[in-house]
Amino acid sequence: MHAESRVDAVEWERWGNDCLRVQGFTDDDARCLTASLAQTSLWGIDSHGIARLPHYLNRVAQGSILAQPDIRIERTGPGTAQLHGGQGQGIVVAHRANALAIELAREAGIAAVGVSDSSHCGAVGLYSRAAARQGLIGIAFTHSDSIAAPFGGHQAFFGTNPISLAFPRAGAEPLCLDMATTAIPWNRVMNARRDGVALPPGVALDAQGQDCTDAEQVRALRPLGGEEYGYKGYGLAMMIELLCGPLNGNPFGPHISPMYAELERPRELGAFFIVIDPARFAGGAALAGVVAAMAMELSQAPGAPRLPGDPEAVAQRVRQRDGIPVPPALWDEIQAWSQRLGVAPPVRRP
Amino acid sequence: MHAESRVDAVEWERWGNDCLRVQGFTDDDARCLTASLAQTSLWGIDSHGIARLPHYLNRVAQGSILAQPDIRIERTGPGTAQLHGGQGQGIVVAHRANALAIELAREAGIAAVGVSDSSHCGAVGLYSRAAARQGLIGIAFTHSDSIAAPFGGHQAFFGTNPISLAFPRAGAEPLCLDMATTAIPWNRVMNARRDGVALPPGVALDAQGQDCTDAEQVRALRPLGGEEYGYKGYGLAMMIELLCGPLNGNPFGPHISPMYAELERPRELGAFFIVIDPARFAGGAALAGVVAAMAMELSQAPGAPRLPGDPEAVAQRVRQRDGIPVPPALWDEIQAWSQRLGVAPPVRRP
Repeated sequence: MHAESRVDAVEWERWGNDCLRVQGFTDDDARCLTASLAQTSLWGIDSHGIARLPHYLNRVAQGSILAQPDIRIERTGPGTAQLHGGQGQGIVVAHRANALAIELAREAGIAAVGVSDSSHCGAVGLYSRAAARQGLIGIAFTHSDSIAAPFGGHQAFFGTNPISLAFPRAGAEPLCLDMATTAIPWNRVMNARRDGVALPPGVALDAQGQDCTDAEQVRALRPLGGEEYGYKGYGLAMMIELLCGPLNGNPFGPHISPMYAELERPRELGAFFIVIDPARFAGGAALAGVVAAMAMELSQAPGAPRLPGDPEAVAQRVRQRDGIPVPPALWDEIQAWSQRLGVAPPVRRP
Repeated sequence: MHAESRVDAVEWERWGNDCLRVQGFTDDDARCLTASLAQTSLWGIDSHGIARLPHYLNRVAQGSILAQPDIRIERTGPGTAQLHGGQGQGIVVAHRANALAIELAREAGIAAVGVSDSSHCGAVGLYSRAAARQGLIGIAFTHSDSIAAPFGGHQAFFGTNPISLAFPRAGAEPLCLDMATTAIPWNRVMNARRDGVALPPGVALDAQGQDCTDAEQVRALRPLGGEEYGYKGYGLAMMIELLCGPLNGNPFGPHISPMYAELERPRELGAFFIVIDPARFAGGAALAGVVAAMAMELSQAPGAPRLPGDPEAVAQRVRQRDGIPVPPALWDEIQAWSQRLGVAPPVRRP
């Protein structure tokens, strides 16, 4: 293990905001994006945290993400709206859509907002938790470019297509599930390549569609459930794809422009947010208390099972105290962007 | 293999309707229930099909399911309602709730109907498909008594808590996912006991919470994702539990009255139905066509992956031609109930 740099979330956000304002983002949008990335890194989800900002900056520079998109909202019913992202940055666009879903759910009891013409929206748990922090039930989906093989198939078709649900919990952060529909994330393949270790069997395929533990040879991930029950993860990915892609007029699966290639090409990605007002249901008034009681009962069950969100809460305590780790390659990217945009680099923690 | 009896769906429905009318069900409710069970058996889902009617008849006889429940509907918003099942039969109650969700979704664009004080609602794919056959997107959830261990836990807590989503597909039946959030259903444990075969590793636990392949010793199922990734199936089961149980004022997990014990005790089960009108979203008009095109593209991909619903479609063709198989033990139950209720038993296929 080499010594990594560490930065405080606040200092990293300062740096990110400076970069984004140079690129033409409004103050509000810059803060929305950097706060989301810092929060995701605080949760320990490094694949979707501060490490992604250089990529977003690059896409803005290449013109495929617009710093000041023309976001258009079509209200289509008491509980529905379509939000056209106008090639905006996906996290900024998704927060707008989720906030609208929250507003509509307060009126109609339940709401859904679909997103079109957007880009990578980061960790979907950001949005479900935002709803749950306001006492609502949040459900969030997104899709991504082709990396997961269909069950029985040999090549990638859908993305890791995640789902998140969050419920308000009395006296604590929301109870939040945020999961990809593949067994492992692509990030784990990248780490195995870097570290020269093997993958477990049953989670990935080579170019011929055979099970593959050699990370260098991996070309696709298996859906959640693996060799025996992968039709379940595959089915979930398919349904999430339809909600995020075709329902909003976006492309699906293999027709989605890749994240890390053709950087000048807009991604036309979608997302889908459902928000439910618990007060409209018989158990609504007591819900947050029952969620807390159920979580307590579970954590005290034999084996002391961990709850969704527990690892994120642990990571957050550590990283708020010690700062967010910045691997050397990311530190180099941060230096390069600081120079390119004429921004003071973030101050490392001593 | 012993020779099983077979009955035509229509003849079995005739018999079921006769039994239910003797027990006091209305014609409409009897037909709703028997058609649902016959359809589920035609799909090949024997665990939720005609084999369950004797159990429902028994609960009606014991007084924990009411043949003519006082079903109450509270409209709580443009897109929401609570349906109080009044201890009705779960499939009858769920169809009522789902039909209301369909009606509300046509008005509000999206709707959710929660069910309280009901009983076992059968295969949740019945409800999502009903919405999709009307051009809408159907999402259905239910919970059940404790059989799945939490990830890292040693004892059962949640049920097999299924989720179903269905989309309209041009020129074909809806594209429908209907999956339990455990790797295998309890039915598979029962079959392994009957046939004296071992279970695969990683799907079940013994009384001490250890992995267990001896079906006789199995006391709990592992969530989807198994030993490594079971926190995903566990998280899904938890979120589905909250939507079906606490949100509707119903009990959760271990506090749910068991299906096959205490038959005189009402089950207080819930369910949750979300219906979305695709016409409210940018891709809505083209959706059913894109679903068909995507399904075609998938089925022609290398490896020819099977689609959700394909096994059900194959089973339905065979069983419409050859009849629904009736194992000897079920045939005996049918005879006993025919005698007890004074109803002519179904005529077997020659």
